[in-house]
Amino acid sequence: MRVLYIGDIFSTPGLRAAKAFLKRFGEDYDFVIANGENVAGGFGITRKHLHELLEAGVDVVTLGNHTWDAKDAFELLEETPRLIRPLNYPPGAPGLGYTTLEARTGERVTVVQVMGRIFLPALDCPFRALDALLTELPEASTVIVDLHAEATSEKRALGEFLAGRVAAALGTHTHVQTADELIKRGTAYLTDVGMTGVQDSAIGMRFDEVIYRFVTGLPKRYKPAEGPATVCAVALELAGGRAKSVARIQWAEPDGAA
Amino acid sequence: MRVLYIGDIFSTPGLRAAKAFLKRFGEDYDFVIANGENVAGGFGITRKHLHELLEAGVDVVTLGNHTWDAKDAFELLEETPRLIRPLNYPPGAPGLGYTTLEARTGERVTVVQVMGRIFLPALDCPFRALDALLTELPEASTVIVDLHAEATSEKRALGEFLAGRVAAALGTHTHVQTADELIKRGTAYLTDVGMTGVQDSAIGMRFDEVIYRFVTGLPKRYKPAEGPATVCAVALELAGGRAKSVARIQWAEPDGAA
Amino acid sequence: MRVLYIGDIFSTPGLRAAKAFLKRFGEDYDFVIANGENVAGGFGITRKHLHELLEAGVDVVTLGNHTWDAKDAFELLEETPRLIRPLNYPPGAPGLGYTTLEARTGERVTVVQVMGRIFLPALDCPFRALDALLTELPEASTVIVDLHAEATSEKRALGEFLAGRVAAALGTHTHVQTADELIKRGTAYLTDVGMTGVQDSAIGMRFDEVIYRFVTGLPKRYKPAEGPATVCAVALELAGGRAKSVARIQWAEPDGAA
Amino acid sequence: MRVLYIGDIFSTPGLRAAKAFLKRFGEDYDFVIANGENVAGGFGITRKHLHELLEAGVDVVTLGNHTWDAKDAFELLEETPRLIRPLNYPPGAPGLGYTTLEARTGERVTVVQVMGRIFLPALDCPFRALDALLTELPEASTVIVDLHAEATSEKRALGEFLAGRVAAALGTHTHVQTADELIKRGTAYLTDVGMTGVQDSAIGMRFDEVIYRFVTGLPKRYKPAEGPATVCAVALELAGGRAKSVARIQWAEPDGAA
Ligand SMILES: [Fe+2]
Ligand SMILES: [Fe+2]
Ligand SMILES: [Fe+2]
Ligand SMILES: [Fe+2]
Ligand SMILES: [Fe+2]
Ligand SMILES: [Fe+2]
Ligand SMILES: [Fe+2]
Ligand SMILES: [Fe+2]
Repeated sequence: MRVLYIGDIFSTPGLRAAKAFLKRFGEDYDFVIANGENVAGGFGITRKHLHELLEAGVDVVTLGNHTWDAKDAFELLEETPRLIRPLNYPPGAPGLGYTTLEARTGERVTVVQVMGRIFLPALDCPFRALDALLTELPEASTVIVDLHAEATSEKRALGEFLAGRVAAALGTHTHVQTADELIKRGTAYLTDVGMTGVQDSAIGMRFDEVIYRFVTGLPKRYKPAEGPATVCAVALELAGGRAKSVARIQWAEPDGAA
Repeated sequence: MRVLYIGDIFSTPGLRAAKAFLKRFGEDYDFVIANGENVAGGFGITRKHLHELLEAGVDVVTLGNHTWDAKDAFELLEETPRLIRPLNYPPGAPGLGYTTLEARTGERVTVVQVMGRIFLPALDCPFRALDALLTELPEASTVIVDLHAEATSEKRALGEFLAGRVAAALGTHTHVQTADELIKRGTAYLTDVGMTGVQDSAIGMRFDEVIYRFVTGLPKRYKPAEGPATVCAVALELAGGRAKSVARIQWAEPDGAA
Repeated sequence: MRVLYIGDIFSTPGLRAAKAFLKRFGEDYDFVIANGENVAGGFGITRKHLHELLEAGVDVVTLGNHTWDAKDAFELLEETPRLIRPLNYPPGAPGLGYTTLEARTGERVTVVQVMGRIFLPALDCPFRALDALLTELPEASTVIVDLHAEATSEKRALGEFLAGRVAAALGTHTHVQTADELIKRGTAYLTDVGMTGVQDSAIGMRFDEVIYRFVTGLPKRYKPAEGPATVCAVALELAGGRAKSVARIQWAEPDGAA
Repeated sequence: MRVLYIGDIFSTPGLRAAKAFLKRFGEDYDFVIANGENVAGGFGITRKHLHELLEAGVDVVTLGNHTWDAKDAFELLEETPRLIRPLNYPPGAPGLGYTTLEARTGERVTVVQVMGRIFLPALDCPFRALDALLTELPEASTVIVDLHAEATSEKRALGEFLAGRVAAALGTHTHVQTADELIKRGTAYLTDVGMTGVQDSAIGMRFDEVIYRFVTGLPKRYKPAEGPATVCAVALELAGGRAKSVARIQWAEPDGAA
């Protein structure tokens, strides 16, 4: 089974590039996951965006610390098992922290997201949340975990914690693709898949306002960067619930698309 | 001029690998910079370590948030212009925040380090510290900046702030090499060069203790990981104070070295 | 000279109580300072609020981390020397970090605000900012410092740093009055003056939404608490630029005011 | 029943003052609780210190974020039900998060400690931990909760969460006594009991090193302040598991004790 994981899709350029990529290469994959926490101008995802991503061939959209930024999330998370938020929210949070769906091959794939706690708001322990879930899932299932976290130490620790237990553990949130892909005990790992959007930016936003804020300490509304976008993604080959290969992808949309 | 920048050298395996790399490839470079904040078991650098790095062909060693962990630092920083700490410490801090030395080509190279402030202790503003320094340096000089910071947004913003003004701005501190190298207005940039050390680890430390601490919330002394190490580095081609090319390096030490 | 310092005035109930207090007791004081960073529903201060406070007899309004929340601040800070923001913003920030005005006694009083950096955004060093200012002020002046900070260690350290150099150093920001008033080398000190507003609240906001957010990790818009309010303030007796006495005040507005 | 709660006992002067207070006034109380996380020079508690406190008449010692600083804690927490650590450590942590003992009146008193998560390391949710515990305790029991937390908003929210459910919820950790004592639905509350130790200090440590670190950003080992100490405490009158009165205490040890 071939699985595609598309990193944090950022605003309109990111959505445009993701759709263009899927149009060209979508058929190469049996299952497609995308992180959608930044589609709505950097802040969450709307009903329209989610629809476009599912239409374009995405099977599951994950979120993150921006889950609740766009108000649609509360409804969408209750409506569809194709949108998930971090598993380690307290009990009773709207929506699902994991979901199980069928790939084009007929195999069942479980997608889980957890959020780290270092430099991020306090949630339940992601390690224990994963432990509890993996104990209850059928052993034969193919599990892919989105590690939405800031600190590299926490992501590497979560990756090791999952090694030999899931098919893949892929980091999101920092918006910069890392070059440390590996497979350990059959589990593919990458610290961060990277952002799908305008790379010539401060992780999605225009530089001007971001630098202004750092230098002056004064407020200024961020604006999503415009221009040509790049898809940051990971392609996995899986079999028997474990990874055979992991490949990083950086695909620049064709000239003139922006 | 060809410049090599070696990412955070972590403990004995990192030092061993860095030295092995320099023995084989050191002659390819006209100037060598290495981040040494983690040589002493993760915590700073001793006189002996510094000596070994300089012997092996390193021209300048940069530090970071671990600058003061090993006590030798206070003396070493006063003794030699080949060891620098972040420029944006308050006035009066021991040692230098930048240094100018001669490359094998006879060209003068200025190496600067600044430390970010997001998720790190409060220091002076790195943007203004760089501005002040760049104004006072001779325009023709070749300047390489070590961006020691945690947050990708701050690193990207610092990189943009420096684009067109220095030869290179290279991130350190997160210990995971990123895959976003670029040249903008003649300035090479990479969010993180990555760690030189045992990659199969929690950014240099053994997984066991790190996971234990995350899961239990209890203390446990970290131990540097042992085993085969990889050099994470960047190779730059520079001319006229600007970058012609930037290449990421991940070089695994030969079997049996560990 | 008798000086009144009114702690963070929070939303409508805080403003109402502050005005009622000043109506009754305002004539007892030769100079009145108030922290106004939370007057506008918790977030900054508007032109109308500022006008009301000045009308009520306040001489200087200080702000804090909420300085820029209400848009009027940018204009107001440029227009009047009766509104100040933290001194240790980077050079070029709108408005003043200190101001010198005449008390009813004809004496000149300088009011300064600095903001701490522990658990707060990175600004310039408050210790060095104070040092620079105190060096340049005429020695005979009466100086009162608003320490807007979160951590008790930083506030106590700033207080000690100022002991013997100013008339008073009074903490704001945590919204809970502390009981550690003292005079050291002629400098009155209190870790926090406390909030002027509805004490039966989560530091000004209704409990419901605050507890909801802590328990669920989900967003919910805070709402300012309503009900009877209390003025938290400090009364100082000063002479020759030093403190003779410091008294904490907690004054509940009369029944039926709310 | 009269209960005494002694705030964070800091180093030798704090211990000396606490013992002197108990010698004079201990008989006035039917049950005595003390926070002991800073007895060992600021960092944890040793077997000898714990023994001295119990000898002096303390019934229960609570800890906090410094629980594990002194190595004896691991053993002591397993040995005695008179020493407790925050309840909201992950399952499996050594020792108890609450304890039930008999007061001099024969009544049973349960002492619980929870730790906040704002500006502190990630633990389990203190609200849910308290909820679970209170559900399982016999309704008639007298429960006193130590709220070990930094942020005033979190402490106030926890206090409200417990109002009407326990006898008292008393804050510790910031080392500065607050002046906001109240009784709501029969539950006594105070944001912080304050430190028992040398008040003329940076929350227990000498000013010199603390100011040096803030100003320079350089390391320097903290040293516990010496000199006359003050007991910060709270006296409660309880009946039927609820509070009848709450009184703040600041008792300076007699001249010459230091
Ligand atoms: Fe995120
Ligand atoms: Fe994101
Ligand atoms: Fe490092
Ligand atoms: Fe570092
Ligand atoms: Fe405030
Ligand atoms: Fe504030
Ligand atoms: Fe403490
Ligand atoms: Fe504490």
